[in-house]
Amino acid sequence: MGLLMAMGGAVALDGAAMAVFLDACAANGQNVAILPTASALPDAGAELAAVLTERGLRVNLLPVHSREQANDPELVAVLRQAGAIFMTGGNQLRLTACLGGTLLHQAMLQAWRAGAVVAGTSAGAAVLSAIMIAYGRSGSAPRPGLAQFAPGLGFREDLIFDQHFRQRNRLGRLLYALAFNPGLLGVGVDENTVAVLDGQMVRVVGAGAVTIADGQSLKANNVAEITNGLVAISGVMLHVLTSGSVFDVQTRTASIPVVPLSVE
Amino acid sequence: MGLLMAMGGAVALDGAAMAVFLDACAANGQNVAILPTASALPDAGAELAAVLTERGLRVNLLPVHSREQANDPELVAVLRQAGAIFMTGGNQLRLTACLGGTLLHQAMLQAWRAGAVVAGTSAGAAVLSAIMIAYGRSGSAPRPGLAQFAPGLGFREDLIFDQHFRQRNRLGRLLYALAFNPGLLGVGVDENTVAVLDGQMVRVVGAGAVTIADGQSLKANNVAEITNGLVAISGVMLHVLTSGSVFDVQTRTASIPVVPLSVE
Repeated sequence: MGLLMAMGGAVALDGAAMAVFLDACAANGQNVAILPTASALPDAGAELAAVLTERGLRVNLLPVHSREQANDPELVAVLRQAGAIFMTGGNQLRLTACLGGTLLHQAMLQAWRAGAVVAGTSAGAAVLSAIMIAYGRSGSAPRPGLAQFAPGLGFREDLIFDQHFRQRNRLGRLLYALAFNPGLLGVGVDENTVAVLDGQMVRVVGAGAVTIADGQSLKANNVAEITNGLVAISGVMLHVLTSGSVFDVQTRTASIPVVPLSVE
Repeated sequence: MGLLMAMGGAVALDGAAMAVFLDACAANGQNVAILPTASALPDAGAELAAVLTERGLRVNLLPVHSREQANDPELVAVLRQAGAIFMTGGNQLRLTACLGGTLLHQAMLQAWRAGAVVAGTSAGAAVLSAIMIAYGRSGSAPRPGLAQFAPGLGFREDLIFDQHFRQRNRLGRLLYALAFNPGLLGVGVDENTVAVLDGQMVRVVGAGAVTIADGQSLKANNVAEITNGLVAISGVMLHVLTSGSVFDVQTRTASIPVVPLSVE
């Protein structure tokens, strides 16, 4: 299984979070596929492609915006060559609605299982899990209807991601997801920050934090009964992890660097 | 020991949070002292006084705005008659700078130990603990310098309060306090909501939530080393408790009502 990289959006192309991806591309065969599918912008992914090309990597910016394209054997063949796959930001439902169940989706999962790096920023990070937050609002406390969920692309079944986390004050919707199913581990990624998943280990790199909300210790919540006001939830274990920290999903413990990584 | 009531600010005079205080006043000798000390407004406390008077309670709005007044034996004698004491909102440093160590402060502690109810809203809630948040900024993650601490009026040594909690996005500064000293239990009270402390039990009443952040389970944090960026903190147990919930400070467990209390 390759690395999974969940970036929190607004990632500086010359920053520490992106450097982790660039290094992984170089180490992983130098062949990179970019999927701009989440975005409605015509030039989505072009700037990253330029940076990657400048670094001497071979880049394919795949024009996949329809299910027909996502089932095009030629495009699928190109993706199969990639040692690293990057999904841009935009709308996560564009990604899942376009890719879900297609040949390209299957090829992505196969490539990842065979060792390819799969990275995404913002919407591209949201879709990495089996269940994702599709829509939602801001706020620190869980409320009925605060978020809507949708099936993601399913690289991980045990986690749920959120992005622009601190910048958009999204703890409430992550807690809301845990109230729905405390078996999930919530991973909230700040902007310009990446959560690098290597099997059971989550490594944090970048200018912000990764907030991990663990529902395993949950004692009580009333999400099934509440129709308005706030949802009560008791016993969420919270970790705010900065660059250089590592979280072990198996043991649910974190190690925090005493001297933080430089993020310049 | 009497009840302690920490209100999160913006408390509706006809709402459920204030009703808890009104009921306690009626049950506790009907004699209420209001301290407008935190406020710079000339009419602070007057509206509450009118509501209490209308309910048939005997109200003394004590004009304490200087240490001289806080040592005035006549004002102290009036406070000693009160079965309930209420501190208005404003600036918590006005309260502590004016009352700290005075005869009135001693009388408040004695009255509370003898059974008087002590309530405060916003700044009046902040000062209830031995260490309080004096200043601070918003945000969900702890950062160096996010809050400054000051000695409070010392009714509780094991807790630290914050107020306007959800409305002003203050989880970060409560986590920052726990990073400083994980022995504390952080109690963040939303607006129009009260945390009623009855010995080791914390009862929640009102329109919002009381967020309890428990540092006892803390595994790691680097607040002592970090000078800029974000503070990492791992292992905070979080409880978002709505009206009708009860938290046991001794066992660190919460009970959540399946059917929430009506807060109309």
